[in-house]
Amino acid sequence: MQLGFVSAILPEQSLEDVFRLAAEIGYDCVELMCWPPGKAERRYAGVTHIDVTDLAGPQVQRFQELARSYGVTISALSYYPNMLVADRAEGQRYIDHFRQVIDAAALLGVNRANSFIGRDPKKSVEDNWPRFREVWGPLLQHAEARGVQVGIENCPMLFTDDEWPGGKNLATSPAIWERMFTDFPTASFGLNYDPSHMVWQGMDYLSPLRDFSDRLVHVHAKDVRVDQHLLDRHGSMAPPNLWHTPKLPGLGQVDWGQFFSVLSSVGYSGPVCVEVEDRAYEGSLEDRTRSLRQSYRYLRQFM
Amino acid sequence: MQLGFVSAILPEQSLEDVFRLAAEIGYDCVELMCWPPGKAERRYAGVTHIDVTDLAGPQVQRFQELARSYGVTISALSYYPNMLVADRAEGQRYIDHFRQVIDAAALLGVNRANSFIGRDPKKSVEDNWPRFREVWGPLLQHAEARGVQVGIENCPMLFTDDEWPGGKNLATSPAIWERMFTDFPTASFGLNYDPSHMVWQGMDYLSPLRDFSDRLVHVHAKDVRVDQHLLDRHGSMAPPNLWHTPKLPGLGQVDWGQFFSVLSSVGYSGPVCVEVEDRAYEGSLEDRTRSLRQSYRYLRQFM
Amino acid sequence: MQLGFVSAILPEQSLEDVFRLAAEIGYDCVELMCWPPGKAERRYAGVTHIDVTDLAGPQVQRFQELARSYGVTISALSYYPNMLVADRAEGQRYIDHFRQVIDAAALLGVNRANSFIGRDPKKSVEDNWPRFREVWGPLLQHAEARGVQVGIENCPMLFTDDEWPGGKNLATSPAIWERMFTDFPTASFGLNYDPSHMVWQGMDYLSPLRDFSDRLVHVHAKDVRVDQHLLDRHGSMAPPNLWHTPKLPGLGQVDWGQFFSVLSSVGYSGPVCVEVEDRAYEGSLEDRTRSLRQSYRYLRQFM
Amino acid sequence: MQLGFVSAILPEQSLEDVFRLAAEIGYDCVELMCWPPGKAERRYAGVTHIDVTDLAGPQVQRFQELARSYGVTISALSYYPNMLVADRAEGQRYIDHFRQVIDAAALLGVNRANSFIGRDPKKSVEDNWPRFREVWGPLLQHAEARGVQVGIENCPMLFTDDEWPGGKNLATSPAIWERMFTDFPTASFGLNYDPSHMVWQGMDYLSPLRDFSDRLVHVHAKDVRVDQHLLDRHGSMAPPNLWHTPKLPGLGQVDWGQFFSVLSSVGYSGPVCVEVEDRAYEGSLEDRTRSLRQSYRYLRQFM
Amino acid sequence: MQLGFVSAILPEQSLEDVFRLAAEIGYDCVELMCWPPGKAERRYAGVTHIDVTDLAGPQVQRFQELARSYGVTISALSYYPNMLVADRAEGQRYIDHFRQVIDAAALLGVNRANSFIGRDPKKSVEDNWPRFREVWGPLLQHAEARGVQVGIENCPMLFTDDEWPGGKNLATSPAIWERMFTDFPTASFGLNYDPSHMVWQGMDYLSPLRDFSDRLVHVHAKDVRVDQHLLDRHGSMAPPNLWHTPKLPGLGQVDWGQFFSVLSSVGYSGPVCVEVEDRAYEGSLEDRTRSLRQSYRYLRQFM
Amino acid sequence: MQLGFVSAILPEQSLEDVFRLAAEIGYDCVELMCWPPGKAERRYAGVTHIDVTDLAGPQVQRFQELARSYGVTISALSYYPNMLVADRAEGQRYIDHFRQVIDAAALLGVNRANSFIGRDPKKSVEDNWPRFREVWGPLLQHAEARGVQVGIENCPMLFTDDEWPGGKNLATSPAIWERMFTDFPTASFGLNYDPSHMVWQGMDYLSPLRDFSDRLVHVHAKDVRVDQHLLDRHGSMAPPNLWHTPKLPGLGQVDWGQFFSVLSSVGYSGPVCVEVEDRAYEGSLEDRTRSLRQSYRYLRQFM
Repeated sequence: MQLGFVSAILPEQSLEDVFRLAAEIGYDCVELMCWPPGKAERRYAGVTHIDVTDLAGPQVQRFQELARSYGVTISALSYYPNMLVADRAEGQRYIDHFRQVIDAAALLGVNRANSFIGRDPKKSVEDNWPRFREVWGPLLQHAEARGVQVGIENCPMLFTDDEWPGGKNLATSPAIWERMFTDFPTASFGLNYDPSHMVWQGMDYLSPLRDFSDRLVHVHAKDVRVDQHLLDRHGSMAPPNLWHTPKLPGLGQVDWGQFFSVLSSVGYSGPVCVEVEDRAYEGSLEDRTRSLRQSYRYLRQFM
Repeated sequence: MQLGFVSAILPEQSLEDVFRLAAEIGYDCVELMCWPPGKAERRYAGVTHIDVTDLAGPQVQRFQELARSYGVTISALSYYPNMLVADRAEGQRYIDHFRQVIDAAALLGVNRANSFIGRDPKKSVEDNWPRFREVWGPLLQHAEARGVQVGIENCPMLFTDDEWPGGKNLATSPAIWERMFTDFPTASFGLNYDPSHMVWQGMDYLSPLRDFSDRLVHVHAKDVRVDQHLLDRHGSMAPPNLWHTPKLPGLGQVDWGQFFSVLSSVGYSGPVCVEVEDRAYEGSLEDRTRSLRQSYRYLRQFM
Repeated sequence: MQLGFVSAILPEQSLEDVFRLAAEIGYDCVELMCWPPGKAERRYAGVTHIDVTDLAGPQVQRFQELARSYGVTISALSYYPNMLVADRAEGQRYIDHFRQVIDAAALLGVNRANSFIGRDPKKSVEDNWPRFREVWGPLLQHAEARGVQVGIENCPMLFTDDEWPGGKNLATSPAIWERMFTDFPTASFGLNYDPSHMVWQGMDYLSPLRDFSDRLVHVHAKDVRVDQHLLDRHGSMAPPNLWHTPKLPGLGQVDWGQFFSVLSSVGYSGPVCVEVEDRAYEGSLEDRTRSLRQSYRYLRQFM
Repeated sequence: MQLGFVSAILPEQSLEDVFRLAAEIGYDCVELMCWPPGKAERRYAGVTHIDVTDLAGPQVQRFQELARSYGVTISALSYYPNMLVADRAEGQRYIDHFRQVIDAAALLGVNRANSFIGRDPKKSVEDNWPRFREVWGPLLQHAEARGVQVGIENCPMLFTDDEWPGGKNLATSPAIWERMFTDFPTASFGLNYDPSHMVWQGMDYLSPLRDFSDRLVHVHAKDVRVDQHLLDRHGSMAPPNLWHTPKLPGLGQVDWGQFFSVLSSVGYSGPVCVEVEDRAYEGSLEDRTRSLRQSYRYLRQFM
Repeated sequence: MQLGFVSAILPEQSLEDVFRLAAEIGYDCVELMCWPPGKAERRYAGVTHIDVTDLAGPQVQRFQELARSYGVTISALSYYPNMLVADRAEGQRYIDHFRQVIDAAALLGVNRANSFIGRDPKKSVEDNWPRFREVWGPLLQHAEARGVQVGIENCPMLFTDDEWPGGKNLATSPAIWERMFTDFPTASFGLNYDPSHMVWQGMDYLSPLRDFSDRLVHVHAKDVRVDQHLLDRHGSMAPPNLWHTPKLPGLGQVDWGQFFSVLSSVGYSGPVCVEVEDRAYEGSLEDRTRSLRQSYRYLRQFM
Repeated sequence: MQLGFVSAILPEQSLEDVFRLAAEIGYDCVELMCWPPGKAERRYAGVTHIDVTDLAGPQVQRFQELARSYGVTISALSYYPNMLVADRAEGQRYIDHFRQVIDAAALLGVNRANSFIGRDPKKSVEDNWPRFREVWGPLLQHAEARGVQVGIENCPMLFTDDEWPGGKNLATSPAIWERMFTDFPTASFGLNYDPSHMVWQGMDYLSPLRDFSDRLVHVHAKDVRVDQHLLDRHGSMAPPNLWHTPKLPGLGQVDWGQFFSVLSSVGYSGPVCVEVEDRAYEGSLEDRTRSLRQSYRYLRQFM
């Protein structure tokens, strides 16, 4: 396993800065954000550490040399839009860009591209399914042709009110993953597994490591604290931001010893990237850097 | 406290049959269903043990004598439609009928009328609120004028797919109850508290007994089993009928000893009515009768 | 084992009333209060169902016939004063009266007399010990000579402020019981074991059943609820009445199934008497009678 | 479901006495022991309430009438020897007798015959398997031909030293049941499921109710207490009688509310028979009768 | 947040030694003991790393330069006597010295002075209150005038027999803190919060971080192990040293991940100082130094 | 305490390599394997870092200098055969070799020699006992005469089928240890305590630290994960390799904070050696080296 971090937490840093910090702390790899250049649409989005729309040959070589020189690998290229958004034209722009992310992952020899399935949050899973099939069939063929594995993060994307009630990503549960992988069995289709989302949905986060071991493309190390006094007040039907808080690894309810116990036993040997979405560590670049150092120290005892 | 049951489980029985069975088993009271005569719209609905649209003086006297002769009291008159349904004309019919239920409760000297707040399930709590205020202000004035207490059940009414995502009843959490009672502080407005709905929403079901002790108009004794292996598969965002099962008291996850411990300590002295919605006991009238006997035996050890 | 109740909850009832109620509910026995006739000094004290100061031969025979006629036995004669109170003259009156209780137990063939050790609450255990030895040596010789077993209840007698900090009874823990039985090894000296007091002191209430099985003279069935939200506020050093509530069996934190599991396995075959000190059931004689019926139903499933 | 008891606890009582007691307490049925007449070989064995070796037509009619007259049904005929014992001649006698039990179950219209698979305790599961196949193939054909369901109890038969290490019954775990039912898929082959044996083996006792719901022929209600202080001393590899104690329902670690919750939800409608093996209730016939009354009261709150 | 340690564990070391060790290990700060020069009165007391009775201008500058040169800040000046001791003359000496500690904190620009409220252990909280008001009113005015925040540690000071029953510090619970801050609402009055004391009093140690977030002046990182086998023997009423053991962070029952999770989420940005009172690490200076290294490694994974 | 590792995980490395790696990572000591030169008989066996059959004077000096030069001590010399194997001639070879290990431990000034008691797995503990006494009496006299402490690991040696049912080591439980130390009370006889074996046997792993504190010769830091879904399937009677997995410290169910809490409180000051038997870290020398680094980081937070 390689320990890395998600570059979204360093939006103002250059690619070289990201590599340098990773190397200095001791991280093995980084998951690089590849949003189209431009303004962020939501928190943690809109970060562009590699501009996949402008990736001429020399660029590719430069990035690879940069990684090599710092001794840090790229775990994946990532772009997390809502490709199944109700507005189809908007969705198509996201799809087109993700194709370019896949191309870039192939060009750079990274061979992992992470994203969400997307979802029209106003519709049920069932009602979203035809569009899922329509969008993802061609995308996965594209990835397969280029030898790239797509890692779908299991984040329900349900934090702010405008994401209510269904969130912006279908891939939230084992039942849905099974259906996804039944419809598209290609080995290019897998998970970017984040245990924290299982926790606040009341689910076992260890058994999927066993049940979907051959679908683990990438892993996110994020933690979460469910505040019981707030859940008592609002209930699980209320938007999660009323009762849960994303935290750094070790500051939440994931038992990371057990997590890495099972992860190592199922033979996972890929990247594990810290995803910082802890508001208590986002006040300044220094705070965010600190969060990466602390997460590194915490996780290194288990891997 | 008086131990009773909700008459909805005996739709084919006459009012006298209901009283007779209650008396035979030992129940102190019954909560009588007062749907408008006609076909049921959903499971457990559409039952009419008292037709409040036809309650001439002699009827009132007859019902009171019937109750007296069997030594069984009426804990409440009940009608659980969705008064805030999107179709306002439909909603108005429900509202008008509930006014009659309130009138009947006053006439019969029962003085408790149970219902739901209702909700447009496609809208957020916030977006439902103006309509809540519009509908319930006059209704509560009506109840107050007649000395009737309205007991709102805290059931999210989220079981079948067509109720997704918000369910058909706003009154699901302490945060919302506080808002309800702040907007309408009248003592005629209270809860028909059912602990089972707190369980599957991941909430403490004991602290509301203390925090809302002066709002406890009526209590339902229903239990629930959350099947963890199904929750692990679907997650709390999926419709609850995928991972939870209503059960008879004692066959679920409510700790009834603790429940009655706190309920007795806060001084509650009203009715506690068994609400049977356990599919394993609904195959025949005999099964349903058995469910009432079993629930009686179970609860009598705590009250 | 015989199921009974402590007669202190029926202060206004005559001995015959007590027997009659016991028989009617189904109880096998009663523990009879034998305070000196006069005004109660504290809640649950001052009850006189048998006046041991006036127990001529005919009385003895009458009481025995009464018991026989109702099919109810007397589990013990009881008197719970503070014999080690700082005021020695006052203490002596208590001691003298308890001697008479012992005599009466022998005369009636009951052979069990329950009490407290007593304690000067302002002094440490160590500082109370000399007085304990001084008082109890002669008392136990007296009991032994008459074939009476003394059952010391393990109640710390620490509920109201004036009992702070040490309470009015030394016999609160296994460490102290061991010391008691080491100093006075006579088989006439034992426990009237009440698991509820172990619960609020944070102690295992099952292992003493094994460790002191040969010292179990009598058992009290009382339950207790520790309200965590109140303990969080005040802490275990604050007087227990700020954070705990005595309750009927089944309405607290004693696991009675486990309790009777171990009690039966260690071969205990004596009386188990319900002690009602649940304020929620003390409003009226009817409430108190109800508490005895409910406790009976609850406990009969385990014995 | 029907509530009954296993007749082995009343070895000295006649069949009619057994029926009479069942009826008096309120039991719906009894599981009748059908050991060959003669001396018992081990505790709870050797009881003969119906002698299947002498079951002429009139006998059958007499037994059926007896059952009818007391309003008590026979849940199963039972005989629990070790048919796979190392001594083949001895094993054959057991096999031959169990054939007669099956015949009797058919004749009496009971259609359930309970037993163990048996096991040579000195051999591994694997090494016992050929003999299992050899013995049970013909037996199950015999049962199938007569319309009788064989209910195999999941008791490891590992209590006394001479049963170490493997116990005398192969059918101890879901893994083994699967193998049994794969080898012999006939619907005549099922389980007489006892949750207590799962408890002391550290296993979930609820999921088999779902996973083997179509194999539930009969259910035993026995409970068990694992004494942690003894397990801490000896460990799970030591013979279980060093650290566990069979107990009456409600006096052990089975959560019967959850047990009946799942049992009712999977649609089980057969017998549930109390099996008394609690030494604390075996001192006298009166004690054993008391154990049946107490178990009845305890279980009736859940069924 | 800054990670530091309490200097009391290094009584024989000079101030410079303390700074040097802190710097070498990596600590950000130290809490300096400021007892009057002289012999210690109790374990962990009597340590003087800064003599506030002799703090001429050059001294102040020297101390500040020392701190700067080692890159270590002073988190607070501390002095933990019993200012409410029964002997008023003795108490006055403590009060006078604490005034000097406050003055020194202002002079040095530290602006935090830690102490206890004090208590006459023989009196109830109520009976101590008048003296609390009398002593602390002027002290807090003094602190407020100098811009110094007083951090009261929530240690009950109840470990040795002579502290029984009430301990030597009133500030033991949220209920008492509320009363303190109601009587003296000045922002100069706050807590030096130590979660370990909540643990052995059976209290939630996380909710006070939220409820008193604006009163958190300083934090102590000490851990505690409650030995259940000893608590079972003595009960919570017995002096805590019979059943609890202070330990280094990570070797007790505080869940430090959860602690720092909530502490970071409420926005605390002040010092967290390791307080070593673990007898297993006090044998030699080397052991004590080791305890500071180990605690550093342990806590750095969470902050 | 000294932190070390068991050298068996580095079979292909020379003694100097082992010392060098220990020093590089930071370990204080190593437990050296002393199997007779030749082919391994089972996994983790057959490793020879010191050949005790060829330990001339110069060798001793060389080894001591090697240790000194790397600043690493030898915690113990170890050899873990089955000295009580059914084949007595084979057993004698083991016994003879262990005598040489003891001699070597004395010569090298290590003074600790670790092993198993051994066991004929087909026989009960009772039936193994005479041979235990016969073999170990002389062995312990030999050790005592040389001032060497024998540390018996509490591993049941029950992982593969051929070890069923009793395993190859008698010393599995406190009950057996007591018997061992009663038969041979010499201070040269003690435990090489490994908490992980207590975990999968369902036992408390903390209380033996207190109860056998004077018998703790050496400690192993190995962890274990019991997979509940596998235990549910097979039960505790099935061979442990069907449901448990040895893991690195921190990746299992041992609570190491509590373990070192009690270990430090009982005054243990000897070696604690990481024993790597985690298949997920055994793929290559690099993996195994990584396992030692990770275990070091993990454990250093507690010691």
